[in-house]
Amino acid sequence: MRRAYTIGIDYGTNSVRALVVDCADGREVGTAVFHYPSGYQGILLDPKDPHLARQNPADYVEGLERSVTGALAAAAKAGAFDARDVIGIGVDTTGSTPIPVDAHCRPLALDPRWQSNLAAHAWLWKDHTGAAEAAAITATARQHAPQYLAPIGGTYSSEWLWSKVWKCLKAAPDVFAAAESWVELADYVPAVLAGHTSPRQIVRGVCPAGHKALYSRAWGGLPAKEFLARLDPKLAALRERMYDEAWPADRPAGALCAEWAGKLGLPGGIPIAMGSFDAHYGAVGAGVTSGTLVKIIGTSTCDCAVVANREKIADVPGICGIVDGSIMPGYYGIEAGQSAVGDILAWWVDEICLGNDALHVELSREAAGVGPGQSGLLALDWNNGNRTILVDPRLTGLLLGQTLHTTRAEVYRALIEATAFGARAIVERMREYGVPVERVVCCGGIAEKNDVFMQVYADVIGHPMLIAGSAQTPALGSAIAAAVTAGEAKGGHATFEQAQRKMSSLKEKRFTPRPAAKAVYDELYAMYRELHDSFGGVPGAKADFPSLMKRLLALRERETAGKA
Amino acid sequence: MRRAYTIGIDYGTNSVRALVVDCADGREVGTAVFHYPSGYQGILLDPKDPHLARQNPADYVEGLERSVTGALAAAAKAGAFDARDVIGIGVDTTGSTPIPVDAHCRPLALDPRWQSNLAAHAWLWKDHTGAAEAAAITATARQHAPQYLAPIGGTYSSEWLWSKVWKCLKAAPDVFAAAESWVELADYVPAVLAGHTSPRQIVRGVCPAGHKALYSRAWGGLPAKEFLARLDPKLAALRERMYDEAWPADRPAGALCAEWAGKLGLPGGIPIAMGSFDAHYGAVGAGVTSGTLVKIIGTSTCDCAVVANREKIADVPGICGIVDGSIMPGYYGIEAGQSAVGDILAWWVDEICLGNDALHVELSREAAGVGPGQSGLLALDWNNGNRTILVDPRLTGLLLGQTLHTTRAEVYRALIEATAFGARAIVERMREYGVPVERVVCCGGIAEKNDVFMQVYADVIGHPMLIAGSAQTPALGSAIAAAVTAGEAKGGHATFEQAQRKMSSLKEKRFTPRPAAKAVYDELYAMYRELHDSFGGVPGAKADFPSLMKRLLALRERETAGKA
Repeated sequence: MRRAYTIGIDYGTNSVRALVVDCADGREVGTAVFHYPSGYQGILLDPKDPHLARQNPADYVEGLERSVTGALAAAAKAGAFDARDVIGIGVDTTGSTPIPVDAHCRPLALDPRWQSNLAAHAWLWKDHTGAAEAAAITATARQHAPQYLAPIGGTYSSEWLWSKVWKCLKAAPDVFAAAESWVELADYVPAVLAGHTSPRQIVRGVCPAGHKALYSRAWGGLPAKEFLARLDPKLAALRERMYDEAWPADRPAGALCAEWAGKLGLPGGIPIAMGSFDAHYGAVGAGVTSGTLVKIIGTSTCDCAVVANREKIADVPGICGIVDGSIMPGYYGIEAGQSAVGDILAWWVDEICLGNDALHVELSREAAGVGPGQSGLLALDWNNGNRTILVDPRLTGLLLGQTLHTTRAEVYRALIEATAFGARAIVERMREYGVPVERVVCCGGIAEKNDVFMQVYADVIGHPMLIAGSAQTPALGSAIAAAVTAGEAKGGHATFEQAQRKMSSLKEKRFTPRPAAKAVYDELYAMYRELHDSFGGVPGAKADFPSLMKRLLALRERETAGKA
Repeated sequence: MRRAYTIGIDYGTNSVRALVVDCADGREVGTAVFHYPSGYQGILLDPKDPHLARQNPADYVEGLERSVTGALAAAAKAGAFDARDVIGIGVDTTGSTPIPVDAHCRPLALDPRWQSNLAAHAWLWKDHTGAAEAAAITATARQHAPQYLAPIGGTYSSEWLWSKVWKCLKAAPDVFAAAESWVELADYVPAVLAGHTSPRQIVRGVCPAGHKALYSRAWGGLPAKEFLARLDPKLAALRERMYDEAWPADRPAGALCAEWAGKLGLPGGIPIAMGSFDAHYGAVGAGVTSGTLVKIIGTSTCDCAVVANREKIADVPGICGIVDGSIMPGYYGIEAGQSAVGDILAWWVDEICLGNDALHVELSREAAGVGPGQSGLLALDWNNGNRTILVDPRLTGLLLGQTLHTTRAEVYRALIEATAFGARAIVERMREYGVPVERVVCCGGIAEKNDVFMQVYADVIGHPMLIAGSAQTPALGSAIAAAVTAGEAKGGHATFEQAQRKMSSLKEKRFTPRPAAKAVYDELYAMYRELHDSFGGVPGAKADFPSLMKRLLALRERETAGKA
């Protein structure tokens, strides 16, 4: 049988990676990375506003050609590979990263008239300039359209589409007026590959729409004109120029146009999978399925789960988003996350200890020698707020229990434990509302490199921590989506589930809960929840702090007895 | 008029210093330091027990001769000084540092039979081996003699005499049996100078007796036999061999014997002032008087105040000790303190930042640029427990409000602020119970060197922070006591107050509260008290934590607005 390959293209925050994958077994036969040349590490900044983060759409277009041709060249160099055997392309990107485009589907920033205006560029996911707009959207929805907030956990984020578009309308009305429409990066790249020349041609994906743009079939698509008019009549007018429907990944976003087929050296007309977010296709690449939670552990954490959409699933309070058809077709996609995980450890090592990667290794090694409860420390993992389950970006960190002998490694471990407790709170919340979690698969640099971290997670969450086989799960997930979109007849696959079975894998290494450690962590987790609920403002929280401090000490004494 | 000098001898934790002082004006004309040669930095340790800290009495005796002759030589070298003009000697020491002695007033450790037994040496103030005994004494007193606990704040400490003596009885019964009596170092050194050859001859000071041995005239001296018998009948028997009365510093401890006059090259028969604790005579040297609080700021802090003993002063809950005649004759001496101040900063710099003295300077400089409330941080200063006003050595530290951008200098400042809040809690508690605090004089290395620290204290406490003129206030205070003991006729002084006016001084440099900073700190202090009362187990504490976290943020925003 003839070989069949798909290409997954993963647009990250600083670079874009293309990966050529064998559809038969998921073998990664070639890859290439292109670093965005504009700004600081690919990000356009404003020295006057630390909340601003934009990207140059020209980098996306150049990166598309350079990464794909590079990956194809690498595949050809590595062995018997023929680009004519590529049967499809998939794309995942950061998000919400909306781009204002003109009537020809061209980003305004590519027009010399707008090039120097930061508002005309892509509004990167971590741009927080629309914080006031986000708060106003939440307040307006609470009063007039609470149904919009239920599936997103109750709070609209400054990182999401309408906050950014509205902020643009206020801060750069000329850019807003010049934009025919706004397109998420996840929808824009497939549109480029398909050669679309009008925003109306773009096939919008349900992931960006449902998770970031308040889209739902339940209320007829995007938020009602009346609602948007309450924010600004011009937003209501823009709604006409956005889209009526968004689609799961069970249909293509388009077919590769002749121009780009030529540029890339690929067969024209091959299908382009529906664009999605990096975390979602990352979950697909890691093997997400009903009962399997995928944790993408990096600077922050994204937790993805799916529930077959024939089951009715309730809104889960505090969970960022539950969207019918997102992540994988045929499921409700459920997205949760922690605002800072690796970032908290990086804060401790970089900012406080003035260390580097070597210090992470050293502190991890030392932390491995500290047993659960032995340091007497307990922390809250809120240095960057709490995304799930409290949905409060303003919360801050807390460290409790330090003495004159507390070491940096003990604090390091306490911070790891705090993030593990935060992770457990998410798992428990999901279960409480009927999302089954029977298996946990982790991916990301920390999962691959930090054994102490992973063992703490296994002990705290009480599940084996499995590790995804690929180090590039988002690109692999995009390639899987492309294989499904191409279909079995072309050498791809009939379903996502079938494609995952063939193309995704787990590492042999896994971390299993140790019963004694888990028992101590069960006690510490109960204390964490006391702090969590009281400082997090959970109604009815028990505020028994004095005894908490003492119980923590008693625990420490018990756990260190005879171990000094 | 002929010049008159006194010698102050200050026994610290690692060394002893002698200081020759001009009685007319407090001029320090010669000094010498002797480092105890035994053990690690003068402390005998037990690798098997981190709570053990003993000292070799031979070091005290050798140091007495070496420091005094050294100081006299330095004085002679520096100018027109004649040792025949020395009119008295005063001694201060660490405490409670009790020494088991034989019937000839000789420390057991100087006897070759006992030399190798650590229990036969001096039990240094920071020996904590008697923790269980301290707890049992507190419990027994609570049940049978609550009056004993009232003037010491409610809790008997493991650092104090009876805890140590009882521990010796249990752990080294042979040493206990061999001891005719136990003598505090502050009483022992004057006895050596006086040539006393029996414990019964020793004139005991009321400072060690009242603050560490549960002595009070109100109940007829040391604790009753019946009480001690409840602990152990052998302790009741020991009471007979201790002392019936202890004295303020308005009478001498003895007169310089011929043997020691010869050794030191001093006139025989000159008076020896009553021995006292370093903090007490330090307060005298810093100018303590009614309305003036002296803060001795070091690794920990000792706060000393006096109230004229014609005023009736109530017991102050949480204050370590209120003793009639201690610190200065004619006053109630009041002692409070914080278990860790410099130690908390040292923990941050040494243990966490792996820095040194230079980093203290660097972080202080950076911390000076952070305004009150701007970091969003709030800490509890309990890394070594809380001595005053909670009297709970088991309490631990807490740091609240950290983000991913929190710097080590911001934490450093938050820790300084936490100790300042703790200091304010002591001042407020004193005032609440009728101890006037109208002036605050600081001494110790931090007071002399760290301007940011002192400014924070001025702003938080709301008083000018004055700095003692001498860098050796304990030795100076001992010299003052000697000048008063010698009397006006010999060229000394009639009263402590008169001697202080002539011999002690203030530096010109002082730190004045800045009203705007004080206003912010008033708000932060209220938040500190919420944490303090709730985590410290104060009955009826309000546990309004969620809003506390948010109010802290609001404060931060207000204080950083327009200052970025």
